Parts: sequence; structure tokens; C-alpha cells
Amino acid sequence: MPNLTTLGAHDLRAVHEDIRRRYQAFAERKLKLNLTRGKPSSKQLDLCNELLSLPGADYLAGGVDTRNYGELQGLPELRAQLAPIFGVSPDRVILGDNASLSLMHDAVVYSMLKGTVDSEKPWSRESRVAFICPVPGYDRHFSICAQFGIEMIPVPMLATGPDMDAVEKLVAADPQIKGMWCVPKYSNPCGTVYANETVERLAKMKTAARDFRLFWDNAYAVHHLTAERVEIANIDELCARHGNPNRAFIFGSTSKITFAGAGVALFAGSKDNAAWYLKNMSMRTIGGDKVNQLRHIRLFNSNGGVAALMDRHRESLAPKFEQVLNTFEQVLGDSGVAKWTRPKGGYFISLEVLDGCAKRVVQLAKEAGVELTPAGATHPLGKDPQDRFIRIAPSFPELAEVTEAVQGVAVCVLLAATEKLLQSHAG
Amino acid sequence: MPNLTTLGAHDLRAVHEDIRRRYQAFAERKLKLNLTRGKPSSKQLDLCNELLSLPGADYLAGGVDTRNYGELQGLPELRAQLAPIFGVSPDRVILGDNASLSLMHDAVVYSMLKGTVDSEKPWSRESRVAFICPVPGYDRHFSICAQFGIEMIPVPMLATGPDMDAVEKLVAADPQIKGMWCVPKYSNPCGTVYANETVERLAKMKTAARDFRLFWDNAYAVHHLTAERVEIANIDELCARHGNPNRAFIFGSTSKITFAGAGVALFAGSKDNAAWYLKNMSMRTIGGDKVNQLRHIRLFNSNGGVAALMDRHRESLAPKFEQVLNTFEQVLGDSGVAKWTRPKGGYFISLEVLDGCAKRVVQLAKEAGVELTPAGATHPLGKDPQDRFIRIAPSFPELAEVTEAVQGVAVCVLLAATEKLLQSHAG
Repeated sequence: MPNLTTLGAHDLRAVHEDIRRRYQAFAERKLKLNLTRGKPSSKQLDLCNELLSLPGADYLAGGVDTRNYGELQGLPELRAQLAPIFGVSPDRVILGDNASLSLMHDAVVYSMLKGTVDSEKPWSRESRVAFICPVPGYDRHFSICAQFGIEMIPVPMLATGPDMDAVEKLVAADPQIKGMWCVPKYSNPCGTVYANETVERLAKMKTAARDFRLFWDNAYAVHHLTAERVEIANIDELCARHGNPNRAFIFGSTSKITFAGAGVALFAGSKDNAAWYLKNMSMRTIGGDKVNQLRHIRLFNSNGGVAALMDRHRESLAPKFEQVLNTFEQVLGDSGVAKWTRPKGGYFISLEVLDGCAKRVVQLAKEAGVELTPAGATHPLGKDPQDRFIRIAPSFPELAEVTEAVQGVAVCVLLAATEKLLQSHAG
Repeated sequence: MPNLTTLGAHDLRAVHEDIRRRYQAFAERKLKLNLTRGKPSSKQLDLCNELLSLPGADYLAGGVDTRNYGELQGLPELRAQLAPIFGVSPDRVILGDNASLSLMHDAVVYSMLKGTVDSEKPWSRESRVAFICPVPGYDRHFSICAQFGIEMIPVPMLATGPDMDAVEKLVAADPQIKGMWCVPKYSNPCGTVYANETVERLAKMKTAARDFRLFWDNAYAVHHLTAERVEIANIDELCARHGNPNRAFIFGSTSKITFAGAGVALFAGSKDNAAWYLKNMSMRTIGGDKVNQLRHIRLFNSNGGVAALMDRHRESLAPKFEQVLNTFEQVLGDSGVAKWTRPKGGYFISLEVLDGCAKRVVQLAKEAGVELTPAGATHPLGKDPQDRFIRIAPSFPELAEVTEAVQGVAVCVLLAATEKLLQSHAG
């Protein structure tokens, strides 16, 4: 493929016709493929089928009857198993239900209605509350802000994480900026790993709001796609070291380690944050599902632990990501109309197309039988001002389907680009 | 035992000395007994041990992979199994995590931060929000109000439910009264069943607040202690019939049907309320734990369903309640210093002692080795103005322990009463 952006009108028209034929040939196959959401595949879920008949007859965990009420903070053994992944001691880990999203939602709710341990008043009594939102980012983070009327201030993602020059300037100047969403490792959707310097600057930066909080969604802490198990700096330690011990609310879960819908989520933070979360949570529940916590303890004890399990997830996921990257390289390599991330972990590839083409690509793909995440979903309020980002989620379909789907998507990218470029030539 | 309230000082002193000796004999046995919380016993939990190895290899529910994300509203088959218990059609039932308390908490949160479908603005933007709280009532309801700064207006419980003359007058006059806590069947702690007329008046009454809500906590819907399976009027139908279709938020769970800590909770309501709850909940989660929902479907299908299971719970619970009632009758029967409820279901007996004696009874019991629910817990902010209500929870200990504990408690009631009466004679 020649570089489409430098072609003259005549050549471009010829290439366009060729691409249109390729698109139609793809569409005529009437496939039904879906690359929309970061769901584990059935084969990945099979890795933990032991959970389906655990815990078995022995329902005791350290003497606790897991079937009954109680143990608000969660079973100590599971907290001890998961705490090292998130760099916090087990006594500052609180287990929740099956979704870390719920814990993030609730942490926002508690901050809104009660205020954090460092707040002068509940956030809902502030004239205005704003969060910094690195973009592209995770749509469900943005939905929580939209739900509660929290203003979203986008900041670009760089190769090292959020643009810290921009972040530092914003939080220093505006006391109404109370929070920031962070997916610090293998971020959704770029796969970015926050550099150590980025993490340290986040821990250290001066914020006009005394009760500023990093919503540290470490969703992909152990979700490696390569042999390199990337580590990031410890946000909890760094916040403490720089005199901001309560700055980070840390979230994680086993959703993409065990069962997506039936895992165990966790909140972690400083001693004061943990006590604060637990107190607020005690109004909501007498305790989580300890039988499910016990299932996870037994599973991790029997199958070599989380790290061994994640190696097996990688075996299933890595070929799909390679397939996407290879196809993009082959079809779009020199076209000049697309670039994409090459993540070392996580669940997504971020594809950038020509300005003003993302929606068109998603539409073309849909008409040809491939569902993609809606363009704009990676931005606050679903609005990507340049209409250029598309999130590719290759985890759920079988490898052969991923291959077909991505070949189709790549052709859509070319087609949308030639349409756009022909318009400019005409204009 | 003579009627203590009519004894002269001399006789009273003699009786007091006798009771004091009985109390000391009890205390010297140095028992460790606990009647504090409405927890099922280990034997009751054993009834559902099948859950400990369910669902087994087959994780599909109507074609849905229960292990993965999705199905926000909950599996249709479990909704269909539970809906009839709560008198609402399955399409208006939403399954939550393991605790109906969480769903009540969240319904308050959504009302505070977003407002109900009938609210002009979020409740948090009102100058004042008040709830009617029938007393004695459930401490965790009151805690939610206290947590969010909701004023609690106590209304006495009568044999027919809340004092409706008082309730109607209050809600008609005060537009800031936005809610009311109701445990309509076998209420906590009195075991009261709301009369049909009470339910109808609640559905029909004029409220100054357009967005007034009944928080209808039907926690003991099928928790019968006698062969009579008491039915109550259908709040959902009555609200609709009287032109207040969205008035009731209905809550329930399987916590005291299957496993207390690992059941499935539900929200139910009008079409608009269900859509409202679901939309707010969609910001919090991608879906509940469907594997646990499937466990429950299989359990109910294999063991004769909920009603059969509840019969077996009754076999375990009813003797404990009989023991409490018999002991109270024997020890306190004609004393004139105590009365108590005789519930046909639920988990509690409410014991009323002489004014100003409840705390003393709890203290005496504690010193003699019997833990009781703190006096006052049945009232808003933990303050029983007359200091007369004590909640007895006999479900958890073995029958023999219940017997011993309640004998001790009865003696404490007598001792606190004679102390009090001697003071009055002296005063």
C-alpha cells in the first residue's frame, strides 16, 4: 500500500476503487464478528472452572463459617494473596463484591455525600467538582463522572502516561479538581505503562485541593502479554513519602484473572483511607460473599497462584494481539492513514485513524458485519473532538475470527481514509 | 411470681433479695451466650450445603455463560423463581449482590444524588430530608438515614403495623418527608404483620412530597414460624390502583433462605422504578455474580423450591422461639414488669421492660455472660426515649443455649425491675 496522504487525485481514485472492491468482497461474506468489549474468551474462563464446584464440603476459612454474615473487610487469607499485586499491606485491603467498578463508583459516592478524610465538606456541597481524565481512556470511568455531574477535563496520554506538565498545571491552579482517573499499567485502551517518573510526579505534585484523589484503577496489574512482567512504581509508598499519604484510592479485581462476572474486587489505600472506606461500606453491607472469597483462596492455592494462572491467560491472549498487530502492519503499514499501540499487556489496542474518520470506520465495519466499540467511547461524554480513536478488543472471539474481523477493519480504515482524502482533493 | 408493681416495700425487698440470689447463681455459671444478631444457625445453613459445589461443570443458564460479564438485570430464571414471593412480575425484578441492605443503601444514594423518577431535584439539594421510622425498628435502616443526614421521625408500631393516623398526618403536612422504612411482614424486631388496611392506607395516603417512597423491606416474606403462612396485601398493586404507581421500592433477598452471606438480593418496583434502578445500577456494575444466581436456580429446582426449604428452616427455628416464649411466660408471666411479642415469623422477639430498665437489663445480662443487642438499637440514633425495648434474637445459638440464655435474661428483667421499684419506694 502506498502512502495515501501523498497520492495525487488520479492515483488516489484508482486506489480507492480497489479498496472499495476489497471492502465489498469482505461485506459479502456476511460475517458476524464482535470486537467491542474487553471480555475474556470462553477458553480463558475454562482455566478457572475449578471454581464451579468449590469450595466443596469444607466451608470454614480460618475458623470462620463463610456461609454466614460477617467479616466486613473480607477473608484475611485472600487479602494476603492479593495485596502484593497492588503493593499494599493486607490490613489495608478491603474486599468487595464482583466488580472493581462498583468500588470506584462507591468511592465517588462516599466522597460526594460524606467527603474524604481530608475534605472540609462533602463534594456534593461544592459549587463544582472536576476530574482529570487522561484520553483516550475508559468509558465507564467517564460515565461515573457524567452520572454525578462531575466535570471532566481531558489530558492527553503520552508514551509515559498522562501529560504531567498539563496535569501539574491544572491541579495546582484549580481547587475544584478533586480527582483523576488513572489506569497506570497497560491502560485502557492504549496499553500505556505509566513511567516511574510519571507515578512519582502524581504522588508529589501540589494540588490546590487538599482532598484531591487519584482513582488508581490497577485493572491490569498482572495481565501481561509478553514474557516481560512490567512493574510500575508503588503509588502508595510514593504518596506517603511525599507527604500525601491519602492521595491514592487503589482498585483492582480478579475479574480478568478468574471469572469476569464472578470474581472478587478490592479497594486499598492508606490506613485512613481504608478505615474511611470500611466505615462507609459498613452502612451498605454486613460483609461480602465469603464463600466466593474462599473459592478464590482454594483456587489460587491449588493452581500455582495468580502468576501461573496469568501465564496461561497470556498463552490464550497473546496470539490474538499478535494477529491484530501483524494484520495492521500488513494492510496499513505504509499507508500513512493509521497508527496503533503495541501493548505489552492489558486487553486493548488503540487505533488512530485520520482526523474525522473514526466514526466512519466504525460504521463501515458495522455494515460489513464487524461490531466495534463506538467511536468516541474513549473520551468524556463519548466525544472524541478529532474523531480519530478506535478501541480494538480482540480477547473474546476465537483467533480465526479475530483474524477475519481485523482484516475487515483494516480495509475499512483505508476506505474511510480514501473517502476523506478524495473529499479534500475535491474541496 | 407476684405482680411486682403492686407489692409494698417490705415484700418487694424480700422478692428482690431472692431474685438477686437467682441472678448470682446464674452469673456464677460463667456462661458465654449470645443473643445479639439475627443470624441463621449452622444447622440452618447446612440445609443449603448443595450450594458449596454448585453449579458444577455446566455453567450455562439459558445459553448465557454465567462466568462472563453481562446480564445486568440478573438471570431471568432466578427472577422468575423469586418474583412471586414479592408480588411483582419478573421483568420488574433486578438482582443485586448478596445483601438487600446494599440495595436499600444504593436506592437512598441514587435518590440523594440523582432524585427519583418523580423528584424535581436530587434529595441532596433539598434543605432537609426526613424519613418516617416506625419504632421499634431495624438499626441498619436507621444507620443509613444517620449516614446521609436524613432526619428520622419515629412513629409507634401498633399490632396492625405503624400508627397510620400519625403517619397520614405527618406525610400530608410535610413535603420534606421523602421516605418511610417498612418491614411489612414479621417486622424486625416486633414480628408485626401489617394489616391489609395498613398496607392500603400506605398505598393511598396523600403525601405532600410528590416523590415520597416506601422503602418496603420484605426481608421475612417467607420466614414463617408457624404452620400459618401469613400473607400481606400486595403493595405494588395497591400503589398502582391508588394512582401512586412509583411509591414503593421493594427489597428482598435469599440471605435467610440460603446462605446469609452468599445469597442473592433483589430490588423490585413499578416499571419506572425498575428502569430507574437499573439505569443507576448500570453506572456501578456490568452485572451481578451470575454463577451464584445459577447456583440458586439449581438449588431451588432440586430441593422443592423456596417454600419447602422454608419449612425446614421453621423446624429448626420454631422450637427456639417457643423456648423463649415459654421461659418468659414461666418466669415473667404475672410479674407485671415485662411484655413481649409472639411472632408468627421472622427472626426476633421484642421484649418490653419497665421504663428506664432496658439498658440495665442488657448490662446485667452481659455481666452474667449473655450478650444482648444494645438497648436503644431498635430506635433512631440508638436512643429509646423510654429505655424499655430489648430485641431478642434466638436463631443462632443451639436450643439448649437459647434456653439457658433466656432464663438468665428473664432473671435480669426481674432484678432490674425490683431495683427500679425499690428506688421509687425510696424516692
